[in-house]
Amino acid sequence: MHFTSEQRLDDGVLERTFTLGDIPGILWTPPSASASAPVPLVLLGHPPLGLNKMYPRLADRARHSAAEGLATATIELPGSGDRPRLPSVDRARAAMRRALEAGEPVGDEIIDALVLPLVDLAVPEWQAALDALLSLPGIGGPVGYSGGMISIGVRLASAEPRLAAAVLFAGSFIPRATFEEARRVTTPLHVLLQWDDAGNDRQAALDLFDAFGSEEKSLHAHMGGHTGVPRSAGAAAVRFFTRHLK
Amino acid sequence: MHFTSEQRLDDGVLERTFTLGDIPGILWTPPSASASAPVPLVLLGHPPLGLNKMYPRLADRARHSAAEGLATATIELPGSGDRPRLPSVDRARAAMRRALEAGEPVGDEIIDALVLPLVDLAVPEWQAALDALLSLPGIGGPVGYSGGMISIGVRLASAEPRLAAAVLFAGSFIPRATFEEARRVTTPLHVLLQWDDAGNDRQAALDLFDAFGSEEKSLHAHMGGHTGVPRSAGAAAVRFFTRHLK
Repeated sequence: MHFTSEQRLDDGVLERTFTLGDIPGILWTPPSASASAPVPLVLLGHPPLGLNKMYPRLADRARHSAAEGLATATIELPGSGDRPRLPSVDRARAAMRRALEAGEPVGDEIIDALVLPLVDLAVPEWQAALDALLSLPGIGGPVGYSGGMISIGVRLASAEPRLAAAVLFAGSFIPRATFEEARRVTTPLHVLLQWDDAGNDRQAALDLFDAFGSEEKSLHAHMGGHTGVPRSAGAAAVRFFTRHLK
Repeated sequence: MHFTSEQRLDDGVLERTFTLGDIPGILWTPPSASASAPVPLVLLGHPPLGLNKMYPRLADRARHSAAEGLATATIELPGSGDRPRLPSVDRARAAMRRALEAGEPVGDEIIDALVLPLVDLAVPEWQAALDALLSLPGIGGPVGYSGGMISIGVRLASAEPRLAAAVLFAGSFIPRATFEEARRVTTPLHVLLQWDDAGNDRQAALDLFDAFGSEEKSLHAHMGGHTGVPRSAGAAAVRFFTRHLK
């Protein structure tokens, strides 16, 4: 892990960009974090739109978490931003768009080809980032995962014992395999669903929530469309992490 | 409205019992409430188990709301506590128990006979209580409704324009008529559902949430069985009221 830039934001949060091998990432730490007072860490997932495009939303959430004494880190997804394209995923994305434009359902084969390669590639990268981040002075634990591409969150929660809590956004296509993995998840979960997200399969999201093996899980559904998660819901997600990570 | 007792609780909350005609009730006001600084009011609903039995849970919730500057009032339901029994509702309750003990579904006729008479009787009583409460010095508005027997909350939200927000607990039988009334509700809603409540019809609760006409509505589902609503969910409900009533 190699830091490539550093700036102190107006609220005292330290924002550092880094590379992990050839993967770019960003780390935000609260002013209170120090080697003698390490803070918990939230891994901040996101849809495959590229870190540059996602930056305002991610930084906003990281600063809210920092106000509660949590560090936040994110990394570029495989095939996104300036990273090498993934031709098979690009082909699946094109097939998905053709289906949507034709008003046809997006079939399981397309969903599998669109999501599963990203999950297979991204999860070991998140785990490598976690190794590197936890070795930094000022970053302690426990660790949470928050974010979209719900299949990545499910795989990470089922595979990574260091994850103590996860906030998952049920707003993307869900491959069949993800339902099976969900049964093995025991991590405390806070699942967000936009009830009136026209492009999302609401019943699949409810079925996935039901499938999770976690004893502690909550589903918070709101109105406002795909990107209209209300501010109060963001604050509730931070409180969930505060309860579980502090 | 006639006050029958008054005590100051250890956190400074003023608890007064009252009668409204022959209906007993309780009013909790925060220490800050005064004629020159009137506070918002939450009407606190409950299942038909009698105020005496429900008192610990109701007082706990009222004190949490008082800490946020909200007054809380509740009244005895028709047929509960020391009020005259409602023989037709008692017969429906016996029929419901027989069905449950026999492992049979509780039919719509039983549900209608169990719930609708209570809704028809209780809602005008809540409205009369609201008239009396809003005329007290120290009680201003806006007004919220919180509680179980979801059909009472739905009727009140659809019929009572003074209601600015409602927290509804989706944990009881839902008559078919309630779904129709739900479409006419436009009040901001915060709906609580216990996901693993074995005695509750989860799909009916989800359908009812979907039916509400409110532009702002949220569904918070948790684990823990019928009575196991987590503390964090209670705090979130108070925050919902704080956003809408203050």
